[in-house]
Amino acid sequence: MASHSEKRSDLFDQPITVINIGLTGFSESLRQQGVPVIDVDWRPPPEGIPRLTHTKSGASIEEANKETARRIMAGRPEIVGLDLAKHVIPGMSERTILHAGPPIHWERMCGPTRGAVMGALVYERLARSPEAAAELSASGEITFDPCHHHHAVGPMAGIISPSMPVWIIENAEFGNRAYCTLNEGLGKVLRYGAFGEDVYRRLRWMADVLYPTLAAAFERAGPIDLRAMIAQALHMGDECHNRNRAGTSLFLRAITPAMARTCEDGERLAQVIEFINENDHFFLNLSMPAAKAMLEPAEGIEGSTILTVMARNGTDFGIRMAGDPDRWFTAPAGIVEGLFLPGFSADDANPDIGDSTITETAGFGGFAMAAAPAIASFVGGTAQDALNSTFEMYEICYTEHEHFSIPTLDFRGTPMGIDVRFVMETGILPKLNTGIAHKDPGIGMVGAGILRAPKECFIEAFEAIKNW
Amino acid sequence: MASHSEKRSDLFDQPITVINIGLTGFSESLRQQGVPVIDVDWRPPPEGIPRLTHTKSGASIEEANKETARRIMAGRPEIVGLDLAKHVIPGMSERTILHAGPPIHWERMCGPTRGAVMGALVYERLARSPEAAAELSASGEITFDPCHHHHAVGPMAGIISPSMPVWIIENAEFGNRAYCTLNEGLGKVLRYGAFGEDVYRRLRWMADVLYPTLAAAFERAGPIDLRAMIAQALHMGDECHNRNRAGTSLFLRAITPAMARTCEDGERLAQVIEFINENDHFFLNLSMPAAKAMLEPAEGIEGSTILTVMARNGTDFGIRMAGDPDRWFTAPAGIVEGLFLPGFSADDANPDIGDSTITETAGFGGFAMAAAPAIASFVGGTAQDALNSTFEMYEICYTEHEHFSIPTLDFRGTPMGIDVRFVMETGILPKLNTGIAHKDPGIGMVGAGILRAPKECFIEAFEAIKNW
Repeated sequence: MASHSEKRSDLFDQPITVINIGLTGFSESLRQQGVPVIDVDWRPPPEGIPRLTHTKSGASIEEANKETARRIMAGRPEIVGLDLAKHVIPGMSERTILHAGPPIHWERMCGPTRGAVMGALVYERLARSPEAAAELSASGEITFDPCHHHHAVGPMAGIISPSMPVWIIENAEFGNRAYCTLNEGLGKVLRYGAFGEDVYRRLRWMADVLYPTLAAAFERAGPIDLRAMIAQALHMGDECHNRNRAGTSLFLRAITPAMARTCEDGERLAQVIEFINENDHFFLNLSMPAAKAMLEPAEGIEGSTILTVMARNGTDFGIRMAGDPDRWFTAPAGIVEGLFLPGFSADDANPDIGDSTITETAGFGGFAMAAAPAIASFVGGTAQDALNSTFEMYEICYTEHEHFSIPTLDFRGTPMGIDVRFVMETGILPKLNTGIAHKDPGIGMVGAGILRAPKECFIEAFEAIKNW
Repeated sequence: MASHSEKRSDLFDQPITVINIGLTGFSESLRQQGVPVIDVDWRPPPEGIPRLTHTKSGASIEEANKETARRIMAGRPEIVGLDLAKHVIPGMSERTILHAGPPIHWERMCGPTRGAVMGALVYERLARSPEAAAELSASGEITFDPCHHHHAVGPMAGIISPSMPVWIIENAEFGNRAYCTLNEGLGKVLRYGAFGEDVYRRLRWMADVLYPTLAAAFERAGPIDLRAMIAQALHMGDECHNRNRAGTSLFLRAITPAMARTCEDGERLAQVIEFINENDHFFLNLSMPAAKAMLEPAEGIEGSTILTVMARNGTDFGIRMAGDPDRWFTAPAGIVEGLFLPGFSADDANPDIGDSTITETAGFGGFAMAAAPAIASFVGGTAQDALNSTFEMYEICYTEHEHFSIPTLDFRGTPMGIDVRFVMETGILPKLNTGIAHKDPGIGMVGAGILRAPKECFIEAFEAIKNW
């Protein structure tokens, strides 16, 4: 597997894809002839950006990033079981609510995050109504904390409340664990900011029926290898962020025999399987903590400019680097260009939200769009757009994944390890695909689409690197 | 959906793919730049072949083919249940053995077909040993008949004996039914010509445990829509002939809830799910009879030059046309170029065998290779080869499928309806992918690969059309 710097020097020995800069007419004519063309949102820095090779303190950035990439790709995330959040997530009290993205106070929270918090507090019976929950949230009696500060991740609003069941993912290579709730499905669901009786009823069924059935099966079946499952799903049209149909199928295939052996009530077993079968996004809440579990062992490698976190709370977009793992660099969350559900439009959309960009950070999700051409129907765009996305992301990644590959590119590894230096040098920002939540609390999902990470947090991170 | 003739007149208004004829250097240089290039095994007919438009009796071939394509694509194959072959397959006696491909006597049968017949007769307790079974087969007391003469299809040797359980597939649009055995898995299995205790034990378990468990579930669940499932699988990296991982996953997702409700023995349920889960080819024995059920309603359309059957018995390759559905045109079965399992080589390979080319006949399988780039690892070749295969097959097909599509081609329909006229005019022969059986009885699978249908049967069929 060639490192990024080797790839660059070998450029002209390799099959050529046209990267078109500026001359749109030229790229259009090539594209009509079927030549792969990448249009880059190119803004050459005014005076050019010299490659940073060492920190002030003398650490080799290249060596640090090599080690970061090695640790991330050596990770072997496995599902080892399930438990309630308060029992297993470190530092979680009965009045802690975890949320997606960088830290944020109640006052600055966006509509869907507020809605999900309000719903969670009613679900936890800490408040009797959404209104009472809003009051409680503003009172200072609830501790709000990012999932990422607790080895956890959450899609969209990313709310984890104490009595919610969570997946326990263990990185078998390094021993660290990551956590995520179980996926509720699409539409009017808590993670998109919805609340109300339907939402609570589903969450209670998940805690009372789904969770114990799955937990009993895992006690019998032992761990399930998620790295292998993600690798397979990438060969079956998923990118494991916005498309999880294959992953959900493979997960069901793997766990159903143990569920059959441990669940004596056939009707209950059937309902659990149906719930998973009816929700092709069920695997998202496994691919996300798998990514988190793979990335954490790289935190704290001195001099590493590779991202270990990229996350949004619906107000701010934040990144963290392996070389300075506790520091967030933030910028306003972006606007998603997407496809909307009937009855909704861009006017209803909340800005970009959720921890699910942990998938792109780990080298799949939007970075593996070339593996998932069918996702066009979900986030908009053509099969060629999907290829172009992946080709472009190679330019800002440190290496190609050793375990995740793309069949249409003859099993080339996915772009892996977003290097802040390459983002700055090329002017190419990470491209993400995501669901879209309604901007008001209590409503839910309105669409899905594509956007880029905001440049400002990369500029700040790059300035920080100069002072390491 | 443009018909073939419309497609041709519009050629130069469409996005261009380079079709390279002869000048290899030119195509290589284009390919290195990422331009899609199709190398065609082109042999222009010496004096050109004029388009046949009407039969001698005055029928419009275009109209006939239009109706054939309409009927095939209107078909809605559904799994309606399972039963024993002798109970449901018309014309099956206690001493009938069905086989793949065109008709053949015991004396001319290839090694794997003989092996599978011998194994089946022992399994049926009609013979005590493979040797006794060979004697019985040669005695004339067994009726050998093609699956295709009984609305059935069988992969590889394609043996169906009276007490084997079979899938019942009903075309909900036309009411016709098709039949196929349950898939045994890969390796040392009956359909690859293997026999012996392991083979019989597996077949008995399938009849005693797998079959009744599935049958009970179908009685409760009602029909499962196979056209929708194949369409989905094509969006998940299967071509539903040599790659059936997605199809097998989707089938399991669909049937497991009903199995949970009808199978009270958890251990037995677990074993059934595990058997299916461990065999990614399980869905092949559903995609094949689905294709058969879709094709049969087109049989007997006067003047139609589209194939309704393409099948091999390991000795002969045979085709049948919608316009003359009972007549076989045959040629010697071809040699497969492929990848071999450890310990085997091309010297061990039997010629091309099996009814599984019914998938290509119905517009998927090898014709949808572009949907299944990951199959490269199974039959050899690159992702570009997979694209080229599909591009080439558009040239000999009457239309593009309305229900089966390819995400990487922006959901273009698969090439559908092999028109004997176009095969003759272009010199392009249908390209197939297939498993490879050992040439000797009793051994089993040795590899998988790619080949083209033999030209001779198309030449004969074309001559026959001229006399219609």
